[in-house]
Amino acid sequence: MNTFGNIFRLTTFGESHGPAIGGIIDGCPAGLSIDTSLVDAELKRRREGDTPSAHTTPRREPDQVEWLSGLLDGTTLGTPIAFLIRNLDHRPEDYDALRDCCRPGHADYTYWQKYGLRDYRGGGRASGRETASRVVGGAVAKMWLRTQGVTLQATRQGYSITCRVHGLPAGVGEPVFDRLNARLAYAALSIPSAMAFAMGEGVDDWRLSADDYPDQWVSHGQGETLTATNHCGGIQGGISNGMPVVFHVGFHPPVTRPDGMVCRCPDGTLKQVAPHGRHDSDHGARLPVIVESMAALAVADLLLTHAASHR
Amino acid sequence: MNTFGNIFRLTTFGESHGPAIGGIIDGCPAGLSIDTSLVDAELKRRREGDTPSAHTTPRREPDQVEWLSGLLDGTTLGTPIAFLIRNLDHRPEDYDALRDCCRPGHADYTYWQKYGLRDYRGGGRASGRETASRVVGGAVAKMWLRTQGVTLQATRQGYSITCRVHGLPAGVGEPVFDRLNARLAYAALSIPSAMAFAMGEGVDDWRLSADDYPDQWVSHGQGETLTATNHCGGIQGGISNGMPVVFHVGFHPPVTRPDGMVCRCPDGTLKQVAPHGRHDSDHGARLPVIVESMAALAVADLLLTHAASHR
Amino acid sequence: MNTFGNIFRLTTFGESHGPAIGGIIDGCPAGLSIDTSLVDAELKRRREGDTPSAHTTPRREPDQVEWLSGLLDGTTLGTPIAFLIRNLDHRPEDYDALRDCCRPGHADYTYWQKYGLRDYRGGGRASGRETASRVVGGAVAKMWLRTQGVTLQATRQGYSITCRVHGLPAGVGEPVFDRLNARLAYAALSIPSAMAFAMGEGVDDWRLSADDYPDQWVSHGQGETLTATNHCGGIQGGISNGMPVVFHVGFHPPVTRPDGMVCRCPDGTLKQVAPHGRHDSDHGARLPVIVESMAALAVADLLLTHAASHR
Amino acid sequence: MNTFGNIFRLTTFGESHGPAIGGIIDGCPAGLSIDTSLVDAELKRRREGDTPSAHTTPRREPDQVEWLSGLLDGTTLGTPIAFLIRNLDHRPEDYDALRDCCRPGHADYTYWQKYGLRDYRGGGRASGRETASRVVGGAVAKMWLRTQGVTLQATRQGYSITCRVHGLPAGVGEPVFDRLNARLAYAALSIPSAMAFAMGEGVDDWRLSADDYPDQWVSHGQGETLTATNHCGGIQGGISNGMPVVFHVGFHPPVTRPDGMVCRCPDGTLKQVAPHGRHDSDHGARLPVIVESMAALAVADLLLTHAASHR
Repeated sequence: MNTFGNIFRLTTFGESHGPAIGGIIDGCPAGLSIDTSLVDAELKRRREGDTPSAHTTPRREPDQVEWLSGLLDGTTLGTPIAFLIRNLDHRPEDYDALRDCCRPGHADYTYWQKYGLRDYRGGGRASGRETASRVVGGAVAKMWLRTQGVTLQATRQGYSITCRVHGLPAGVGEPVFDRLNARLAYAALSIPSAMAFAMGEGVDDWRLSADDYPDQWVSHGQGETLTATNHCGGIQGGISNGMPVVFHVGFHPPVTRPDGMVCRCPDGTLKQVAPHGRHDSDHGARLPVIVESMAALAVADLLLTHAASHR
Repeated sequence: MNTFGNIFRLTTFGESHGPAIGGIIDGCPAGLSIDTSLVDAELKRRREGDTPSAHTTPRREPDQVEWLSGLLDGTTLGTPIAFLIRNLDHRPEDYDALRDCCRPGHADYTYWQKYGLRDYRGGGRASGRETASRVVGGAVAKMWLRTQGVTLQATRQGYSITCRVHGLPAGVGEPVFDRLNARLAYAALSIPSAMAFAMGEGVDDWRLSADDYPDQWVSHGQGETLTATNHCGGIQGGISNGMPVVFHVGFHPPVTRPDGMVCRCPDGTLKQVAPHGRHDSDHGARLPVIVESMAALAVADLLLTHAASHR
Repeated sequence: MNTFGNIFRLTTFGESHGPAIGGIIDGCPAGLSIDTSLVDAELKRRREGDTPSAHTTPRREPDQVEWLSGLLDGTTLGTPIAFLIRNLDHRPEDYDALRDCCRPGHADYTYWQKYGLRDYRGGGRASGRETASRVVGGAVAKMWLRTQGVTLQATRQGYSITCRVHGLPAGVGEPVFDRLNARLAYAALSIPSAMAFAMGEGVDDWRLSADDYPDQWVSHGQGETLTATNHCGGIQGGISNGMPVVFHVGFHPPVTRPDGMVCRCPDGTLKQVAPHGRHDSDHGARLPVIVESMAALAVADLLLTHAASHR
Repeated sequence: MNTFGNIFRLTTFGESHGPAIGGIIDGCPAGLSIDTSLVDAELKRRREGDTPSAHTTPRREPDQVEWLSGLLDGTTLGTPIAFLIRNLDHRPEDYDALRDCCRPGHADYTYWQKYGLRDYRGGGRASGRETASRVVGGAVAKMWLRTQGVTLQATRQGYSITCRVHGLPAGVGEPVFDRLNARLAYAALSIPSAMAFAMGEGVDDWRLSADDYPDQWVSHGQGETLTATNHCGGIQGGISNGMPVVFHVGFHPPVTRPDGMVCRCPDGTLKQVAPHGRHDSDHGARLPVIVESMAALAVADLLLTHAASHR
C-alpha cells in the first residue's frame, strides 16, 4: 500500500496541501553515515531538474527535511529513520472551485469513487508532491548502495527516462515473482504519471530478432565486460548478471491545462473550470531523480535480500 | 519471492525437469464453484496457443492437474487450494552437455552466480514450464472474477501482447505503491522473457501531446462510457475508473538457437555446444493466456483488498 | 520489523532521547471521524495509569500529538495518517556514565551485539517510550472498532493484565498461522517487558481437565450467550465465536535498580554504576492501555481481513 | 494466513480428510543437504510421541513424504521445496452424523460462521493433521540451523511443553514488532489447541521480584556463560543474547469426548451425538516435536533476516 520493500522499506505519508509530507525508512543497516546535504541536493534536483528550467511550477517549497529518529551523530542506528518536510507554500483556497467536481486526466474521480470523499486541495495524495518523500528514501538507499559499490545515473529525453545501475554484482533478484526487472517495473509504475517500462540497453532491444537479441559472452569476461552487447539490460532470468542494469520509463504529459478544463460534477453533468492552482507546464525535468530514487530502493532491498541467504 | 499477492495469493513451485510443478492458492473466498475443465482449457491454450501452431515445443506434457486440498464437492472451502502437475515427458539426459557451461541469453549464468549451483536440466526454475502453475492460479482467479462481473481477453501481435480487463468497478488499486498499474507491471515483468510494459488503449498513447492525452468526460457517462477516449487505459492515479483496463506486454524472442550456441565455461573460456533439448522456435502463441493469468491474479488481489475497507 | 498488521498497519519510529517518536497508520478506512481528545486521553492513561500513582517516572512528557497527514476536517481520507510526539523532557547527559557499558536486564548488550553500536541515551529504541506511538495507533484502531460495535476494557493485577474484547462478531481470524489468538500473542509479546500470554476467561482455564474444559452450547444462544462458560476465551480453531475474547499478558518487573547496577564493559569486565536516569519504580499502572492498544490493532486488522472475502 | 515467515517461509495446505496435506518451503538457502530420513524420524515423533503411547489416535497414517521440487541429488537448489503427504487411512463416512451440527470445543461453529460452509469430515483444516506439514518444514529449518550451530530440544510435562534453543548467537530478533519472543509466541499460539506461552528458564520466572528478576553478568562471560541466571530466557529487548532461549507453551486437553457430545444444530437447537471418528485421548505426547518445528521456523527466519543487514 504505502510501503515499498521487504527488508529495506520506505513508508510514506502526506498530501499536497496537508501540514507535511514525509516517511519512515526501516531496515537500513546500522553504521551508515548519512550526509544530509546529499539528501538536500537530491531534493533540489527534484525541484529544478538537472538543469534549471522555466517549466517547473511557480510553487516554491524549500523542502527543508527534519530528521526525527534513527540517527545518532549522523550515523544510522539500525532503527527506523523518520523524516518530514513541511508544506509551506500551499494555497488551498486556490482549489475551492474544484471542491465538487473532478478534472479530466487527474485522480479526482477515482479517489472519490474509492474513498467516498477526497482531498480536493491540489490533488491530495495523488499529487506529485509525495514524490519528495521517495527522493529522501532513495537518497538514503543510494548512500548505502555506494558503500556496496553500486551507483545510479538517470537521463531523460522528453518524457522518457533512462536509468543505469552500475556495480551491481551478479545474483541479485528473487525469482520467480520478485525478479529484479519485475521489482524495477513495480517501482517505476508507482510513480505518478508513469505509463511505460522497458528493459534493455536500447528501449526497443527486446524487439530484435532471435538471431540478434541474445548477448554473446566475452571470453574471460565478467562484471561489466561479461557480454559483448547488453540487450537484456543486465538481467537474465530476473537476476542481475553483473552488466549495467539498464531500463527506461515513459511518462504521460502534464494533464492540467492552463486554459481550463471540462470537469465532471457528482451528478454526471459537465462544467468548464479554470483552476488557479500552480502546476508544472513541463515536469519532465524533475523525473530523473525520482526514477533513480525508486530504482535505488528496489535495488537496495533486493541486494539485502540476496545477502540474507547467499553472500 | 515465490508468492504473488497479499490477500489472493499464489505460491508456485517446480523445476522444468523435477518430479512436478504446482502451487498453492491461498485467500480464495469460500463458496466458489471450480470447474476444473475450464482450468484444463486454459492449460491447453498455454500449450498450443489460441490457434494451433507448428512452432511450439515438441515436448508433450499432458498437464494433468491433480487437486490436493481446499475443495469439497467442487466448491472452495476458503482454505488453501493446492495442485500439482507431474512432469512426464522430460528427458534430462538431453542436457548433459550443458552440465558445466552457461548458454547465452538464458538464466544459467545468473542462477549459478546466485545459488552457487544450478539445475542444469532444461532451465530449472527459470524455464517457461513454471508458467503452467500461474495459468492454474490465474484460472481460479478468473472464475472468482467472473462472479464479480470481471472478465479478461488478451490478444497478440508477434511478441507484443495486449490485455483488456472488462467490468472492473471504479476504485480498485492501492496508492501509492500498490497502484493498479504498478501491480500489473510487477505481475507482467515476472513472466519469463517479459521485457516491456505500457498502459493505455494504444501502446504509445502515453506519448500523446498534453492537449491530446487527457481523456475527456462523457456527459452522464459511467463505467465503460465514462470517457470519450481511453488513453489512460482505465487507470487514473493508480486506481481503476470503470473504463476497460488496457495494457501491453512485450517479450523478447526465444533465445535457444537450434544450430548451437557459444557457451561460457566456469573458468571463463567459451565453447560451442548444440543442445538436444526441445524448445519453442516461436513461443509467442503461448503468451496471451499467461499474461491474462497474471493480470487476473493482480486484479483479484486488489479487488479483494479494496473490498476490505471500501465496499 | 517496525510495522504491525497487514491491512490496518502501524509503523512506528523513535528513540527515547531522539527528537521525536511517532508513527504512520496505513489502511484505516476513509470517512472515520477522529476525536483527537480521545487520543490524548489514552496517552494520559499511559502516563499516569488508570488511577494516578506515585510510582511512575518523574520524567514529564506532555505527549502533545501533532497530526501530519491523512485527515481533512477531522475525518480520515483513507490515506496514511502520520503523527509525531516530540521528546521534550529528556536529559541525555544523565546517561553519560552508561556510554560504554551494558546494564543487566536491559537491552543494552543485545542492541550492541546486533547493530554494532547503540543509542546509550535512555534505552534508545528499546525504551518503553516508543509505546506512546502504539497507544496513538491503537486509539485510532479503537475508534474504527467502535463503529463496528467492538470495544476493549483491560484491567490489571500487579504485572498481569487481563484484556476483554466485546462485540466482535464470529468469524474473525485467519487460519492457520494468523489465528486470532496467535496474532494477539504476537502483538502482546512485542510490548517491552512482556513475558507471558494466556487465552481463556481464567488465566489457568487451559489447565482444566478434558471433562471440564469444553464450553457447552446454550440452547439458541449466539453472540455473547453462545456458550455457558468461556474457557476458550472466545476463540475456537483460531477464529472468534462471538463470545467475549479474553486473554492475559504477564510482564516482568522494572529492571532498573535505583541503588545502582553491576554493568558489563565491552571487554567483559564488570563495574558498578548508579544511573541518574529517571525511571518507573512500578510501571504496572501504565500497562492496561498499552495492551488494549496492541489488541485493538490486531483485532482491527483481522476484522478488515475477514471483511475482504467473507462479509 | 497460511504462510509463516518473511525470508524462510512455509506455506501449508490440506484438510484432515482431503486427498493430501503438504506445503512449500521457500527461502531455504541453496546448497543444504536434506536427509529425508531425518524428516521421517520427526514425523514419527509426531505420530507416536517421544515414547510410544497408548493414548494416540487409532488412525494409522504412514506419513510418506513425497518431495516434488527444489532438490537435486538431495541438495537444495534455493528454489521452493514442495512436498506432500497423502491421507490414506481416512474414513470420512465416520463423520456423517456431524454433517449438520457443531461439536462443543471444536472449530466447527467458527469455520461455519467464517466461510458459510465447512468441511465436516474430521475437523477439516482445523484438524491437528495439518501439523504434519509444519513438522516437515520445521525439520528442514532444523537442518539448516544445525549448519549454523543451532539446535532445539523440547520436553513435556502434561500439556505444558518447554523448548530450548542452543547455540543461537546474540543479535537475533527484529525490534519492535518482530522481537524474537513475539515471533516465538506467534508461532506457538498458531498450533491447534495452544493456549498459553511464557518466556524464561522457569515458567514463572517473570513473576520474580524486581530484586531477583534481572540476570546478573558473569565476569568475562559470553554465549551460554553470559549471565549467572537465565530468567529472561535468553532474550532481552526482543533480541537473543547468546544464552539458551527458553520458553514454555501450554495446551488445552483434547475436546473430543468418547461418550458423545451435545452438539449445536444450525437453528440453535442442541442434540446429543456420538461421533465414530478416531481421536487422541491424550495428544500431549505429540506436542514437543510440533513446538520445536514452529520454533525452528521462527528462529531460522529471524537468523536469516539478521544476516541480511548485520552479519
